[in-house]
Amino acid sequence: MKCRRCQIPAVIKLPRHNTAFCRDCFEDYLHNQVLKAISANKMFKKDEAILVAVSGGKDSLALWHILNKLGYQTVGLYLNLGIGSYSELSQERTETFAKGRGLELIVQNYRKTYGLGIVEIAKESARPPCSACGTMKRHHFNRIAMEKGFSVVATGHNLDDEASRLFGNLLNWQRPYLEKQSPTLSDNGGKWARKVKPLYRLPEREMAAYAILNRIDYILEECPKSKGAKMFVYKEALNKLEIASPGRKLAFYLGFLKEKAQLFPSRIEENPNTCGECGQPCQDETCGYCRLVARVKTKVMS
Amino acid sequence: MKCRRCQIPAVIKLPRHNTAFCRDCFEDYLHNQVLKAISANKMFKKDEAILVAVSGGKDSLALWHILNKLGYQTVGLYLNLGIGSYSELSQERTETFAKGRGLELIVQNYRKTYGLGIVEIAKESARPPCSACGTMKRHHFNRIAMEKGFSVVATGHNLDDEASRLFGNLLNWQRPYLEKQSPTLSDNGGKWARKVKPLYRLPEREMAAYAILNRIDYILEECPKSKGAKMFVYKEALNKLEIASPGRKLAFYLGFLKEKAQLFPSRIEENPNTCGECGQPCQDETCGYCRLVARVKTKVMS
Repeated sequence: MKCRRCQIPAVIKLPRHNTAFCRDCFEDYLHNQVLKAISANKMFKKDEAILVAVSGGKDSLALWHILNKLGYQTVGLYLNLGIGSYSELSQERTETFAKGRGLELIVQNYRKTYGLGIVEIAKESARPPCSACGTMKRHHFNRIAMEKGFSVVATGHNLDDEASRLFGNLLNWQRPYLEKQSPTLSDNGGKWARKVKPLYRLPEREMAAYAILNRIDYILEECPKSKGAKMFVYKEALNKLEIASPGRKLAFYLGFLKEKAQLFPSRIEENPNTCGECGQPCQDETCGYCRLVARVKTKVMS
Repeated sequence: MKCRRCQIPAVIKLPRHNTAFCRDCFEDYLHNQVLKAISANKMFKKDEAILVAVSGGKDSLALWHILNKLGYQTVGLYLNLGIGSYSELSQERTETFAKGRGLELIVQNYRKTYGLGIVEIAKESARPPCSACGTMKRHHFNRIAMEKGFSVVATGHNLDDEASRLFGNLLNWQRPYLEKQSPTLSDNGGKWARKVKPLYRLPEREMAAYAILNRIDYILEECPKSKGAKMFVYKEALNKLEIASPGRKLAFYLGFLKEKAQLFPSRIEENPNTCGECGQPCQDETCGYCRLVARVKTKVMS
């Protein structure tokens, strides 16, 4: 198997592009996919500082690596959720990554802030772990971005994440989620940071290959609380379809983006109010995060 | 395992309804699903004669059996496509079924009509077999219904057929097909027969159980030309999701029907013209069927 571009031995085969690449050409191809995603969705400008949300996994560390290599100004943000050894190891991997490249990393530790990890927070607030975790993360991403003056937060969601989320939203005909799903989430009229997903064109398999080829030492384990999540069933189904018809996964997601404006138009000013507690934009008088924290405090203190 | 309704030993477990039924209660349940489909989609009235398109497979023969048992006036229509022993056996099964119940059956034989089977017709018209077959079938369903005075043609499409077709249409964002997909297809303002799918609430597994319990001797083989069809990949993916989350398949399809009017509205007067050759409603001056047949004639005669 030879590299399609330069004819030296290839390191990876890409059935969806009916091609194969050597290490350098694969890196070049992958970087171009990221640049394409950034420009097609007006994610950020060259001089904009980017807060990169990192978990210690392959996708977010590779994203940070890529943005840094492409010359963007980046700072990492790691949230230690307090899930035992999983959190310890993922923080260690993230810190080692940042130190090795001389990059700035902001760390927020839930146990230090709340005296509880996310599992206990979810339990006390009677919410499923992934749902409570999403609410908490969104709050801290926004808060830290605003406090430190970042207009944009980048996350490592890859094509498999986005296509399987889309698949789940369609299977359940979740119109509000379909309206919100996008590679660039609104900054709510400048009231908070834009969320962007520069890896949405790249499948998990290619991101793993990239991380390995670039010797990024990432945590292999998925979050232990995500076991049995529906998302894995959706991912598996899409992977089977991808094998039967290479390229289908990206075509499915890009097709959605093309049809979205007409079928599932985004509501621009989706959070018209400001939370009376934390000041972040929200739907009601108090935001979901502040309600969740208030509930946990009542339960823990009672 | 006992029947949920009458406590005698059950013959079938239905995880999607979290229940199990004996033979009689299963039949009762299944008939009710068909009646629900008929009334919710205004498929036909009690006194309307129905042309039932039968292939010799479990779904269409079971549909004919059910409609007959429920007291509807039915006539069967079998198209012999001329695919060797598959067509011979399926015609034999269909004729035996009709004879045993004293039901009228109309048979149309492609080799007698055209001198060619569907495989050769597809080849000569440079069309994929399933595509040419669909065009041909639609024409004959309409023609025979109109000639014999039927206002409605019923087909045996089950939930797996409809959900997997929906899945494929969404994966490929086929807006025109999504607009057309429905349990009741328009009669084009009375210009041709309504097409209805009374089994759309019932999965393949339940239809197979029904056919076996009712000793319907059907042809087990799928059409040999459908091997490798994408539809099987979609069906397999949906079956995995159904196992992980019983009831998902029907919820997916019903959710679509609920959202359809807003997201993918049907165009009522979809075929404004009349074919100059055969007189059936069509988009252009000559319909797809007549163009196909003309092409085959030119090729075969040249």
